[in-house]
Amino acid sequence: MPTSQAGQEIDRLIQLLAKLPGLGPRSARRAALALLKKRETLLEPLAQAMTNAAAALKQCATCGNLDTTDPCGLCRSPERDNGIICVVEDVADLWALERAGIFRGRYHVLGGALSALDGVTPERLNIGPLVERVRNGASEIILAMNATVEGQTTAHYLLDILEPLHLKVTRLAHGVPVGGELDYLDEGTLSAAFNARRQF
Amino acid sequence: MPTSQAGQEIDRLIQLLAKLPGLGPRSARRAALALLKKRETLLEPLAQAMTNAAAALKQCATCGNLDTTDPCGLCRSPERDNGIICVVEDVADLWALERAGIFRGRYHVLGGALSALDGVTPERLNIGPLVERVRNGASEIILAMNATVEGQTTAHYLLDILEPLHLKVTRLAHGVPVGGELDYLDEGTLSAAFNARRQF
Repeated sequence: MPTSQAGQEIDRLIQLLAKLPGLGPRSARRAALALLKKRETLLEPLAQAMTNAAAALKQCATCGNLDTTDPCGLCRSPERDNGIICVVEDVADLWALERAGIFRGRYHVLGGALSALDGVTPERLNIGPLVERVRNGASEIILAMNATVEGQTTAHYLLDILEPLHLKVTRLAHGVPVGGELDYLDEGTLSAAFNARRQF
Repeated sequence: MPTSQAGQEIDRLIQLLAKLPGLGPRSARRAALALLKKRETLLEPLAQAMTNAAAALKQCATCGNLDTTDPCGLCRSPERDNGIICVVEDVADLWALERAGIFRGRYHVLGGALSALDGVTPERLNIGPLVERVRNGASEIILAMNATVEGQTTAHYLLDILEPLHLKVTRLAHGVPVGGELDYLDEGTLSAAFNARRQF
């Protein structure tokens, strides 16, 4: 059965939109109709923006970040500390840390997290170049993986690789999110925050 | 503050993606990164599909449906009953009814619902041509608006216009959704279903 009643062009559009994270089949249908309803103001500018972004952005060969230049702006910046490398799963995580504005070292983007279910093996992640960068001189590695099973599996895998290189390996603290209410926290977070309590 | 850290091309892409229904600023960021991660398999085919769909699909001048032909397939079909017109808010609603496969008459797409908040006045809806179609011969009009405040306001507005034309005007039944559990229904639906109860 077709997804729509209006020909294969729109079925194909809906199928591709449904592959975007956050859009299911039903919301992809709504998005396709919204695009066709606003051709001049949305569809055409978006198609153009996609083509422009694809042409302008490249992956940084050093850290895996996306930027208009290679090496990227963060790798080129003379003001950042070469001695600390913060390892993240994805470019979105790098952006999140940059928005927080708390880190002045270099980054390394793995391009995902280990996952047996999704077939993500160590070979598919950007790990070899990380070891190379560490060998070329770094005093601290921050493993800023997500606090998910996949993220933590990846962090432990990297720890095993990095430990023989004798450098400081750290990870982000677990605890109560700022603004969070204890009553709404899961037990894992609460017990992590309790165990890591600090002197006032 | 920029949405990303990677130049205006991606900021523009994220801003446009965020205009799609169902995508907020955060999910638009994730969608933009997914697109740039899968250029050959997702970004390029999607940009192409958007351009193709925009070129192939037109709005039917008779009913407002989207199709590759004008008049659309549903208006051209010789097997459908000209005497019954089902009025819907959007093309998505028409598709939903067609998927259910229960209606063999013609459709009329209003292109939205009356909404003072969103500035949707009767002039902005496809109402004039509907009255024209009714005058040219129709024995029943089904007002299949959404069961929202805007949808029901629109239905009552149309009823006022159609009543002097002396034809049968019907609306969809309210009641318990098939598969629904009473315990989970709102009071409005439950009382509508109770009041419209039928002999077993």
